[in-house]
Amino acid sequence: MEVFGDNSCPPSCNTLGFLQKNNSLEEKGRLAGHKNLLSCDNSDRDARFRLTETDFSNLFARDLLPAKNGEEPTIQFLLEMVDILTTYVKKTFDRSTKVLDFHHPHQLLEGMEGFNLELSDQPESLEQILVDCRDTLKYGVRTGHPRFFNQLSSGLDIIGLAGEWLTSTANTNMFTYEIAPVFVLMEQLTLKKMREMIGWPNGEGDGIFSPGGAISNMYSVMIARYKYYPEVKTKGMSAAPRLVLFTSEHSHYSIKKAGAALGQGYGSLFLTPGSFVSSRPPILQWLCVLLLQGYVPLFVNATAGSTVYGAFDPINEIADICEKYNLWLHVDGAWGGGLLMSRKHRHKLNGVERANSVTWNPHKMMGVPLQCSAILGILAGCNSMCAGYLFQPDKQYDVNYDTGDKAIQCGRHVDIFKFWLMWKAKGTIGFEQHIDRCLDLSQYLYNKIKNREGYQMVFDGPQHTNVCFWYIPPSLRDMPDGEERREKLHRVAPKIKAMMMESGTTMVGYQPQGKNVNFFRMVVSNLAATQSDIDFLIDEIERLGRDL
Amino acid sequence: MEVFGDNSCPPSCNTLGFLQKNNSLEEKGRLAGHKNLLSCDNSDRDARFRLTETDFSNLFARDLLPAKNGEEPTIQFLLEMVDILTTYVKKTFDRSTKVLDFHHPHQLLEGMEGFNLELSDQPESLEQILVDCRDTLKYGVRTGHPRFFNQLSSGLDIIGLAGEWLTSTANTNMFTYEIAPVFVLMEQLTLKKMREMIGWPNGEGDGIFSPGGAISNMYSVMIARYKYYPEVKTKGMSAAPRLVLFTSEHSHYSIKKAGAALGQGYGSLFLTPGSFVSSRPPILQWLCVLLLQGYVPLFVNATAGSTVYGAFDPINEIADICEKYNLWLHVDGAWGGGLLMSRKHRHKLNGVERANSVTWNPHKMMGVPLQCSAILGILAGCNSMCAGYLFQPDKQYDVNYDTGDKAIQCGRHVDIFKFWLMWKAKGTIGFEQHIDRCLDLSQYLYNKIKNREGYQMVFDGPQHTNVCFWYIPPSLRDMPDGEERREKLHRVAPKIKAMMMESGTTMVGYQPQGKNVNFFRMVVSNLAATQSDIDFLIDEIERLGRDL
Repeated sequence: MEVFGDNSCPPSCNTLGFLQKNNSLEEKGRLAGHKNLLSCDNSDRDARFRLTETDFSNLFARDLLPAKNGEEPTIQFLLEMVDILTTYVKKTFDRSTKVLDFHHPHQLLEGMEGFNLELSDQPESLEQILVDCRDTLKYGVRTGHPRFFNQLSSGLDIIGLAGEWLTSTANTNMFTYEIAPVFVLMEQLTLKKMREMIGWPNGEGDGIFSPGGAISNMYSVMIARYKYYPEVKTKGMSAAPRLVLFTSEHSHYSIKKAGAALGQGYGSLFLTPGSFVSSRPPILQWLCVLLLQGYVPLFVNATAGSTVYGAFDPINEIADICEKYNLWLHVDGAWGGGLLMSRKHRHKLNGVERANSVTWNPHKMMGVPLQCSAILGILAGCNSMCAGYLFQPDKQYDVNYDTGDKAIQCGRHVDIFKFWLMWKAKGTIGFEQHIDRCLDLSQYLYNKIKNREGYQMVFDGPQHTNVCFWYIPPSLRDMPDGEERREKLHRVAPKIKAMMMESGTTMVGYQPQGKNVNFFRMVVSNLAATQSDIDFLIDEIERLGRDL
Repeated sequence: MEVFGDNSCPPSCNTLGFLQKNNSLEEKGRLAGHKNLLSCDNSDRDARFRLTETDFSNLFARDLLPAKNGEEPTIQFLLEMVDILTTYVKKTFDRSTKVLDFHHPHQLLEGMEGFNLELSDQPESLEQILVDCRDTLKYGVRTGHPRFFNQLSSGLDIIGLAGEWLTSTANTNMFTYEIAPVFVLMEQLTLKKMREMIGWPNGEGDGIFSPGGAISNMYSVMIARYKYYPEVKTKGMSAAPRLVLFTSEHSHYSIKKAGAALGQGYGSLFLTPGSFVSSRPPILQWLCVLLLQGYVPLFVNATAGSTVYGAFDPINEIADICEKYNLWLHVDGAWGGGLLMSRKHRHKLNGVERANSVTWNPHKMMGVPLQCSAILGILAGCNSMCAGYLFQPDKQYDVNYDTGDKAIQCGRHVDIFKFWLMWKAKGTIGFEQHIDRCLDLSQYLYNKIKNREGYQMVFDGPQHTNVCFWYIPPSLRDMPDGEERREKLHRVAPKIKAMMMESGTTMVGYQPQGKNVNFFRMVVSNLAATQSDIDFLIDEIERLGRDL
């Protein structure tokens, strides 16, 4: 690393405590203003950085810690990386930057200006590694950009980001208290808070963070089956009658995946048309038919915030049926669960306290970095196998804190810390403000386009932030309804989306649903988005779609 | 943030480019020595830090980006966090620090010197958040410490760590090329390299990174079942005969969990005694018995590196049987797969190229940060549900790169980047050196204690880094073998382990296995460990166990 020779370093150069050899405890006290900063592990003098002249072109991974004399290059390398990352963070929030710099797979595979994805036998220099990191970000998608609306998960929460950096540095595993004491307790306390928000008495129950909503939903089917037919665990599906799972057509496809994976077959799913909104009669009807044919209804999934429409099933009505027929009630709140944090919107999940299990992904509506998904409910026994090498009963601490045997996983990533830290930093009211703001913004979009020329809504009165609409280019506005118009309209959203991605200005999702041809699905979960970004999106759709 | 007022900043103060307002492009060219550093996204002047005076006690999460004027506090906050983390990294490799500072769950729950885990409605200041982060690390376990031998995953790889920081900052999801173009291609290329190391012709086949070895093993059962009985996907287990999975007693418990979860029941597992090493006759015998009873053998799991003993099943012999009876052969190389990178040790997996599927966890023997696990084999069709909102066929790019429909997950964490970056930085030869060094170190331990007074080996001639042994305290050395001695010996390892954790000096695992009472399982996967650390462990066991 070369020295810039900048001798005119300003007085404030050392403000952060970076790059200092000998800052005194007194100075640290001034920095910190808190006794814990002094009493903690990191307080001694030698911990601060020393400087060396570093040329990364002659340094390799083998020169970093634990190599002898590896401390200097390690710190310099990490700081250089942080420079790359903080620059990226700033750009992410800068509307003058693109959301993405699109290239086709073959272009990236052929190598972009020296960005070579191929792996080789010999090591590359740390300089090249840093270049590779810059390029990785350059050709990626800025999911935290204020104009990225493509996915239910968007935004870049700074506290959550810092939490993830710490999690990576701690590099541990959730299966035992032994090697993750703090994280295991944080998970326990946070799950209890979530159960309190759901409304279960005293927050009682159980739960676990899983690798995403699909796995959380899979847990729900497993625990339902285990409750009613525990012998399936040892004997397989032959120990149970022909079980039926109910869910709506609009529910997430992971329920279907779960049916297939768990040996029930996704044919065991009965899909009620649309969302459950008007489906009480169909359910009852199905129940009668099924019971007569020897099938046994087991489980009902009520969706709280469907993926495409953001629709909320009427949980109380469904709970009544479940109670009557002794069915397991699961609420898939992967997308809508966050609304429980809002006094204004939580009524949309009324009845959730009657559920047997709930999926809730803080990484969606609450802006927690990926991944962070919880399954809440009683897991005990469902997956336990009591592996002797991990879950020794003769440990010196209370082994009830070893959570691993509840999971279908063995090792489990630490997904809790970033969420815990965000909750600490924002408070419950911070999440509430986030939710309310995003829903307000969607309402702004809905109001803006519902009567605007060239727009047609897929449904009225959005319940969540999902606003689904067709943009009708001028060429189609006077065309009579019919197959030709439908076919043309079906091609509009993909074309606009492709141009959007090529220009890199914004991103929004589209899809067909049932009989509806391709339409845009707008969602807001990014705190960085404002009305001006909504306006920008609409302008962009019109600019790109005007001549189609 | 206060200014320290250090005016004597040395010329090299700005070496890193941190804290600079106006470094010129020319200077950056000197720093980088590479045109990509100039042509990349991060090259403009304003991207460098500016300084402000920051008092974190008056700042909150709401003051960070995307807040107006949030850029300054955001950067300052992230840099302060990096100071905490780099200090932790340095300490991790410092043998004068403890591996852990043990506290019981109730102690941490009651609150340690102001470290309060409870969540509340109101936000906390960023100063408190930083203190919480320091405390989180203080009361955790340093899994990268040279004397942490407790788990198959240990160590703290600096390149991998930097890769995880970048991954968190990019905060995206693996399901589509659309939002993770670079990561999706990296995954594809890296999986191909892994298949080449396995020895499949031209590296052909498929695969995916999953949330850990247990899920990877679950995939193997699912894809085997799908290949032979595809109708199970729609119709459930009633579409298949009574299927049997074979695995050894010593195999990982996740095979059992998979049987239970997938609706086959873990009773569908036939556990051959011990490892498979001498089990060819038992398998054949079982096959005959089963076929007569109307069961259909489906799947054999051969373990390459068992969890406790590190034993390798003889894959070729098992493959012969699988070919003869048309069974799916899965190799669970979660722990042992890394040995494929070593020319000296890869022969232990001879025959792996005949497997239908392979689990391989780079986060274990190869030192990649948690989590990083691959399942390699043909996945196509097994889990696909073609969700319209994600996998639109009318995208502008080649949608074969959308990988999400292969997974049992929907969203999927980016586990590839850190691994890809480490491979770039170390080269294949760097992983080989890592593996060889860890195996040499285990051999050193084995040679040291095999004939040492007070030690008894659980098995001779370790195949992996697992060295399993009893430490016999002087009080038991002359006691005749029998139930009393067994009971006393059973309590030795837990007692020593408890004292180890209380003193925080080192950590090693123990467990019983079959008829063997509690013994220590020593494993090495941490590049930081040296012979002196092995010596330290043995000294520590003798110091703590001498008077038992």
